[in-house]
Amino acid sequence: MTTIFDTVQHRFERLRSNKLFELIVIAVIIFSALVIGVKTFDVPEWLLSSLNVLDWAVTIFFLLEISIRFIGEPRKRDFFKNGWNLFDTFVVMLSLIPVGNHDMALIARLVRVFRVLRMVSIIPELRLLINSLLKALPQLGYVLLMMFVIFYIYAAIGTTLFASVNETLWGDIAISLLTLFRVMTFEDWTDVMYETMAVYGWSWLYFLTFICLTAFAFLNMVIGIVVNVIENENKAADAAAHAGEPTIVDVHRELLALKRQLAEQATRK
Amino acid sequence: MTTIFDTVQHRFERLRSNKLFELIVIAVIIFSALVIGVKTFDVPEWLLSSLNVLDWAVTIFFLLEISIRFIGEPRKRDFFKNGWNLFDTFVVMLSLIPVGNHDMALIARLVRVFRVLRMVSIIPELRLLINSLLKALPQLGYVLLMMFVIFYIYAAIGTTLFASVNETLWGDIAISLLTLFRVMTFEDWTDVMYETMAVYGWSWLYFLTFICLTAFAFLNMVIGIVVNVIENENKAADAAAHAGEPTIVDVHRELLALKRQLAEQATRK
Amino acid sequence: MTTIFDTVQHRFERLRSNKLFELIVIAVIIFSALVIGVKTFDVPEWLLSSLNVLDWAVTIFFLLEISIRFIGEPRKRDFFKNGWNLFDTFVVMLSLIPVGNHDMALIARLVRVFRVLRMVSIIPELRLLINSLLKALPQLGYVLLMMFVIFYIYAAIGTTLFASVNETLWGDIAISLLTLFRVMTFEDWTDVMYETMAVYGWSWLYFLTFICLTAFAFLNMVIGIVVNVIENENKAADAAAHAGEPTIVDVHRELLALKRQLAEQATRK
Amino acid sequence: MTTIFDTVQHRFERLRSNKLFELIVIAVIIFSALVIGVKTFDVPEWLLSSLNVLDWAVTIFFLLEISIRFIGEPRKRDFFKNGWNLFDTFVVMLSLIPVGNHDMALIARLVRVFRVLRMVSIIPELRLLINSLLKALPQLGYVLLMMFVIFYIYAAIGTTLFASVNETLWGDIAISLLTLFRVMTFEDWTDVMYETMAVYGWSWLYFLTFICLTAFAFLNMVIGIVVNVIENENKAADAAAHAGEPTIVDVHRELLALKRQLAEQATRK
Repeated sequence: MTTIFDTVQHRFERLRSNKLFELIVIAVIIFSALVIGVKTFDVPEWLLSSLNVLDWAVTIFFLLEISIRFIGEPRKRDFFKNGWNLFDTFVVMLSLIPVGNHDMALIARLVRVFRVLRMVSIIPELRLLINSLLKALPQLGYVLLMMFVIFYIYAAIGTTLFASVNETLWGDIAISLLTLFRVMTFEDWTDVMYETMAVYGWSWLYFLTFICLTAFAFLNMVIGIVVNVIENENKAADAAAHAGEPTIVDVHRELLALKRQLAEQATRK
Repeated sequence: MTTIFDTVQHRFERLRSNKLFELIVIAVIIFSALVIGVKTFDVPEWLLSSLNVLDWAVTIFFLLEISIRFIGEPRKRDFFKNGWNLFDTFVVMLSLIPVGNHDMALIARLVRVFRVLRMVSIIPELRLLINSLLKALPQLGYVLLMMFVIFYIYAAIGTTLFASVNETLWGDIAISLLTLFRVMTFEDWTDVMYETMAVYGWSWLYFLTFICLTAFAFLNMVIGIVVNVIENENKAADAAAHAGEPTIVDVHRELLALKRQLAEQATRK
Repeated sequence: MTTIFDTVQHRFERLRSNKLFELIVIAVIIFSALVIGVKTFDVPEWLLSSLNVLDWAVTIFFLLEISIRFIGEPRKRDFFKNGWNLFDTFVVMLSLIPVGNHDMALIARLVRVFRVLRMVSIIPELRLLINSLLKALPQLGYVLLMMFVIFYIYAAIGTTLFASVNETLWGDIAISLLTLFRVMTFEDWTDVMYETMAVYGWSWLYFLTFICLTAFAFLNMVIGIVVNVIENENKAADAAAHAGEPTIVDVHRELLALKRQLAEQATRK
Repeated sequence: MTTIFDTVQHRFERLRSNKLFELIVIAVIIFSALVIGVKTFDVPEWLLSSLNVLDWAVTIFFLLEISIRFIGEPRKRDFFKNGWNLFDTFVVMLSLIPVGNHDMALIARLVRVFRVLRMVSIIPELRLLINSLLKALPQLGYVLLMMFVIFYIYAAIGTTLFASVNETLWGDIAISLLTLFRVMTFEDWTDVMYETMAVYGWSWLYFLTFICLTAFAFLNMVIGIVVNVIENENKAADAAAHAGEPTIVDVHRELLALKRQLAEQATRK
């Protein structure tokens, strides 16, 4: 015996997995992104106020959509087990903060920007992409740790020696880390080097070894990812292509059975 | 019974696929490119006017060539089904716009530049290259979409926060997107950062996360292409190398047949 | 019959390979790194003096740790055969130099920075990473030699020709090598080029060929590493996956044996 | 019956392939490179004159070495068939031009620099490296042609439109090509762009499409090389690993033969 609530739940569950519903949600997300974009231009007052109305319409739409998803969930607990659902609910809830002309206005506007991220939680392929990126991170963990050790040691040396040369670039270890990141991206790194070389003539060694070490570590990281991805692809391809097919082990087993059978026939005679 | 028109069509069809004809067309394209190049230098008046004459000669040659290709086509409809033919016709037609000393002059000269692109439509290997690039694009679609989402969110945040710091770099979302593209190429990105850090001290976080995210997404894209290309190559190589050769499945089947045959012989006796 | 010394040795050997002991050492290393980092900021006098006390505590802890490792070693000679042990002992010994307010102060502070490197000698995965990097180096030897030959020739040419143009960039071969390294990283290379082009109009050729050659050599190096790593992985994967399994050679041998057996049975009858 | 000349030839042929002889030549090349390097520093007069003497000693040594190689060659014609021999002879001959204090001095000094390149012709591994690079070039031919077409079209457009904005960057097609190469290396490309954007507001489109197109073409080139190298390695590894081993085709053939044999035995009975 189904109650009214169950009927609603089933209807919403069907709606949730409806392709058209998904497309409408994506359209609203894109529209909401456009609204945010248009607002950054110098727009006349009347357009701005209508954009604000549209903004509220989008917020209400998202609220309804999340409600449908929640009510459509057969077991309410599972809804909050899914990280993407939590993310969606969080982003939509934050949008409810009213945008007044006070201190909160800036933050409220920034929160609305994150609604564009719902694109990722809605389109399955993007979700897959993010998941595979997150899966690749722990494998890179040790290379990243190594890189941080290199950065930290160079930053400590840099601060100790060069703080007296240029306070804005080598003032403390945090600023030195930022300066080294800049050197790694080759951004005007010679300006930084020539400045320290005027005091410490050998400091080109500091920069060259740093660049070589980080480049090498970075290369190692990239190669690590490439090799890993290719390996996984190969395994998946192998498993898919030859699933159910006999292997050379099967062939060998059959051959031995045949030999035994032949020998038995010979002795039986 | 062949009409005169049919004879002409057949003759032109043969001409079209003639290797020498192709080489002459390529030579004319290169010559036309050189004419465009020479004109950009300070050349004496008499050379410029003879170059203009040569330019018209090239246009007429291309017009004749396209006509030959069109007349040489057995079914006229097929001619326009080929995208490269459409491109060729379009470029040649545009060249017919007269280069006067008025407003159209600049545009007419630009149109002539695109005649160099006919190199691609003439040389089959370049056409193949373009086709394979275009084929690779949809596979990258989701990574590109992801990258755009990252760009858009950062641009929206950047405009909201930094517009008051530097109007020329963060004035609206379009300008911010351009600024972020510049940051991605590491082009004087520290100048942009130091400027915003003077107002928002934590803004190094904005730039560092942006650089890491886009670098990571870009890496992902490159790896995606590499893996894809290697896979396709492997498949093609496998198919080519072992075409017609028996597989392990065949060997296994034969072995089972042999076993059955042996068993039958034993029972028959 | 075990002496007291042997008992101590056995107890320390167990302690050495204890997981908790390792974690404590890692924690102390991280703490020591943090102490170094905090000191670079403007800290009040009382904190600085307590940090100095902590610094000595860390030095004593490391001294004890190395002693435990040494005493825990069954054969004392093996301890010094391990490069990482030597490195650890060296770094800890250097820390014993007192940090006074005199000339040695700077050096003593720098030495403490290298204690962060003990992270690498403690964590096995990082040690493995370093070892694999060092193993890859000799394979790259010839590409690096080639790159140095290119650099040296261009530096010699650059010094000969451009020394009169800009003494700070092309003064002698060492400075020219540094300038070329800068050009290779694309750091304001056009400024260097435009300056020489003002005197030698053709010098763009010098820079373009240099960039292309080094980019090509660098590419070659990267590809060399990638191919090498993939090959090794493939070999390892092959060996691991099919160890103990029959190969196609075994199958072929069995088949020939079967044929012979069948022929023998036929003749025996 | 051997003449004196034949004896000399045989002795020199042995000398040529002597490992020690090769090491001495390499040592002299390195020494000659060092001499060139030292001369670029401010050295006292007496050192400079002794370096000049050493320079002549190196020239004479190389002359003797080439003579030994030439006399040691059994068939004189083969000597000049080897490109590296021609290169060596050419470089050594050029060194004979006397370094006076006149116009030729600069050129004569530059020629001496190329003696460092003899490193490549002496060390077999470097020669191999160069050969493999040269072999890879034709495969890249079409991608390079494509890249040149892109560059040429953009340079032609750039000259036509931006020559009036900045004569030094877009004056003629040659300068525009150089400017575009600079843009491709991301070297202060925004300075170039912002300048043109002041006149043509849409010109960011010109730069962004150019960067994307060349980056894409470059990526394509790199991937092409990687795939090619991996393929060749795989083929070589396959051929080496399974040479002489039976293939699945052999196994299949044996199996069919066995079946026929069995059938014959059954009918014979």
